[in-house]
Amino acid sequence: MKAKAIVFDAYGTLYDVQSVADVIDQAFPGNGEIITQVWRMKQLEYTWLRSLMGRYADFWEVTKESLDYTLRHLDLEPAPAIFDRIVDKYYRLDPYADAQATLAALDGYRVAILSNGSQAMLDELVRNSSLGLYLDAVLSIDTKRIFKPSPHAYELIEEKLGAKPAEVLFVSSNAFDACGAKNFGLRVAWIERATPDGIRNEIRAARTAGPKTLYKLMRMGMESFGLEPDYRIRSLSEIPPLLRAA
Amino acid sequence: MKAKAIVFDAYGTLYDVQSVADVIDQAFPGNGEIITQVWRMKQLEYTWLRSLMGRYADFWEVTKESLDYTLRHLDLEPAPAIFDRIVDKYYRLDPYADAQATLAALDGYRVAILSNGSQAMLDELVRNSSLGLYLDAVLSIDTKRIFKPSPHAYELIEEKLGAKPAEVLFVSSNAFDACGAKNFGLRVAWIERATPDGIRNEIRAARTAGPKTLYKLMRMGMESFGLEPDYRIRSLSEIPPLLRAA
Repeated sequence: MKAKAIVFDAYGTLYDVQSVADVIDQAFPGNGEIITQVWRMKQLEYTWLRSLMGRYADFWEVTKESLDYTLRHLDLEPAPAIFDRIVDKYYRLDPYADAQATLAALDGYRVAILSNGSQAMLDELVRNSSLGLYLDAVLSIDTKRIFKPSPHAYELIEEKLGAKPAEVLFVSSNAFDACGAKNFGLRVAWIERATPDGIRNEIRAARTAGPKTLYKLMRMGMESFGLEPDYRIRSLSEIPPLLRAA
Repeated sequence: MKAKAIVFDAYGTLYDVQSVADVIDQAFPGNGEIITQVWRMKQLEYTWLRSLMGRYADFWEVTKESLDYTLRHLDLEPAPAIFDRIVDKYYRLDPYADAQATLAALDGYRVAILSNGSQAMLDELVRNSSLGLYLDAVLSIDTKRIFKPSPHAYELIEEKLGAKPAEVLFVSSNAFDACGAKNFGLRVAWIERATPDGIRNEIRAARTAGPKTLYKLMRMGMESFGLEPDYRIRSLSEIPPLLRAA
């Protein structure tokens, strides 16, 4: 493919959403795993449900609502300062270990983020992780007031970067996002960070599927929509060689 | 309230979606619980994601796709006949024990189902459970080609029953559906079949949250959208006295 622009999803793709677990476990010892997984699953659900109800609220609101849901239904009621400390971690999520080197190797392409995050969340996240040096644009779906995988969210790429869908390689580890991008007409590389084989082994080893395994099972497999990504890779670091080979 | 029409959600409200577990456990011994829970969660996800992508497929397709997803990611590949036997259970889900008596006690009201199910699925489900005697209409969102909680789905009630939103009591145990109905302007009774207290106790007893507990935590609590149902009840059987009291 002759890509002009390489566009990355943020949460779960460049930045590890699982990196909230430590701050949660400090606040609620022993509950880090279950809160982390349910919060993330509800956060995404809320983007879809609010979009579908025609009741958009930005990702900061959705992030707080979904944490509120999670804690409330576990019968946990933190002081406001503790709630804020947890949710503020979304400004300082850990980038994946290979994120910086991957972006640095994309010289010559237009490189951007397209994310559900609000502009303020994304700008601070990028600033705190020093990835900004390698990014030509940080695009928030907030201006469209509808979340991925709505086609309207992906329209931003052409509008802001001037690259047509067929000239874009969109990179996401979120299968629903990879499908949404493919449904829209982008070229797509999906990062498969968990495999059916690995999930099966986790369940065997634990004799049951705990919250983290369930999360992988729910969120990290390719969806059954009849939409297939153009490339299946295992990590961000496969992107530069993939582009050189093409 | 002066209700003219009482409209029920089907899956999870009149009919127990958990009643697929036995046929699944026969096909995949020891895996009934995890498949049941992940299948249902993905089935709902797929209604939202397909709606949001503008890629509608009817609920029968979505039900098969979500089962395919679930089995594929558990590394299970059933023969087609076994796959069909599992998915066909959606035509014969068990009604809740109090479903028939509740509907029978609603003489004098227009009584209907409004469901994500396709018309063929719903008609057969109602026929197989003998609830049809008490129903004036069985409405499928299929004619709208968008799933709940889209406002378009709830428009069917006024279109088909002639009752204005304020004259309708909508009954659902699905919190997202109760919120969608409230967002649309219906009067809503939400059936809370699992409580935070109960979920917490399950987690304590098991030392972790297995798939069924996770399902309850994900799906059976009231959502944090700032939308509150008009009535919170614990079972279908509370509907007739609630109407008499009003």
